Amino acid sequence: MTGRDGGAPLQPRDPSPVIILVRPQLAENIGSTARAMANCGLFHLRLVSPRDGWPQDRAWRTASGADNILDSLTVHETVEDAVADLHRVFATCPRPRHIVKTIMTARGAAADIVLACERGLKTGILFGPERAGLDNDDMACADTLVRYPLNPDFMSLNVSQAVMVMGYEWWMAQDATPSRQLMTNESHVATKGELNNFLRHLVRELDECGFLRNEQKRSGMIRNIRHFFLRGEVTEQELRTLHGIVHELSRGRGRGR
Amino acid sequence: MTGRDGGAPLQPRDPSPVIILVRPQLAENIGSTARAMANCGLFHLRLVSPRDGWPQDRAWRTASGADNILDSLTVHETVEDAVADLHRVFATCPRPRHIVKTIMTARGAAADIVLACERGLKTGILFGPERAGLDNDDMACADTLVRYPLNPDFMSLNVSQAVMVMGYEWWMAQDATPSRQLMTNESHVATKGELNNFLRHLVRELDECGFLRNEQKRSGMIRNIRHFFLRGEVTEQELRTLHGIVHELSRGRGRGR
Repeated sequence: MTGRDGGAPLQPRDPSPVIILVRPQLAENIGSTARAMANCGLFHLRLVSPRDGWPQDRAWRTASGADNILDSLTVHETVEDAVADLHRVFATCPRPRHIVKTIMTARGAAADIVLACERGLKTGILFGPERAGLDNDDMACADTLVRYPLNPDFMSLNVSQAVMVMGYEWWMAQDATPSRQLMTNESHVATKGELNNFLRHLVRELDECGFLRNEQKRSGMIRNIRHFFLRGEVTEQELRTLHGIVHELSRGRGRGR
Repeated sequence: MTGRDGGAPLQPRDPSPVIILVRPQLAENIGSTARAMANCGLFHLRLVSPRDGWPQDRAWRTASGADNILDSLTVHETVEDAVADLHRVFATCPRPRHIVKTIMTARGAAADIVLACERGLKTGILFGPERAGLDNDDMACADTLVRYPLNPDFMSLNVSQAVMVMGYEWWMAQDATPSRQLMTNESHVATKGELNNFLRHLVRELDECGFLRNEQKRSGMIRNIRHFFLRGEVTEQELRTLHGIVHELSRGRGRGR
């Protein structure tokens, strides 16, 4: 069983940053990191001296089909070796340290990575081991620290969750999806002419059945009904359904089975 | 052992949206969802007919200390019951369905949730079961769908990762951390006067040792050195270290132990 939607092997969406797990402890986290990377279109994974060696079957079990990220990863003895071919290195770091260093949000770093990639620079992001995080020597291998703005009262972030946030921001830095849209499928948003046509039908039937019999309140009531139907975008298909509802209701009770 | 940084119980950061897991299958995912919620300052969790009943010990084991989110959650038989007291409901949904519905990105929905909370409205976000996702009836309980812009070739997102992305965006919608800053600790960024003072010291010593002996190239070389030292922000403390380095180097070799 794979969790993949398609059957084809994952392809790198290059240029993309290298994810570097430093002294990872749990194989499950390496696997779920690969899954999160696949979700975000990341492909290149490096491990620096994994505690229990490599490969480990349990990683493939939590990768949910992101197998060829695990198949293609490389293992390195030191952080220095893992970043040797890179031009720009970020280090995720939950707590401030007593060093002089540029520190960015995940969003800021993602924009920086996209810029660096556009300039042809190879980038990488270091993630520390589960308990301790990156040590001072690890951070001295990075140009820039990344600290997520998240709840300061509960900083213990699972490593694959940390990779997810960074990968998500990297994807979003290149994404142009409108923040709100209406899925209309085969229909289209109704024009004001189509809407007014329905409202005339409704008012005619409301006059017929006596709902608008109070002459003094009539025009205000009609306006309020208009305001309701204008609040959300209505589609042409929905207007046809509404026409049908008004038509059937206006024929009176007792005709259904 | 807890993964908490402090010892105090987590407090709701209200008003905050309710996270609703619909028919969750694995207790581990309920626990890691609670952990992700704690990371993002979320507190209110509801379960709709969890497959294996509730409570389940394994959830507390993966919550890494986010225990009182689990202790405080409520269990509901139906989605309709779980959203009954809410004013605005979002449903995360990875694939487009043949319905007419407003669909937002996680970022757009997060901004919407913050606005709704400011208006005193209670909000909630539905997350579907691990394999199948939300069904058509579930989605018909929501005002708005949320679809993350992520890799369309690998949509299988772990439920706690999905909660993380939404919670992270909710936190970010209210966060004002500068996207880039320099941690300087006790020091401060050097003024141009302090920097020029160091550069004068350096040039004086480079003249002394003969490094700038080529009169024709001298001014260009000095400018290039200036450009290098101007590239990153340098702190006053680092300038003092650099003064020391130049001073000691200029006294010549063979004096170290």
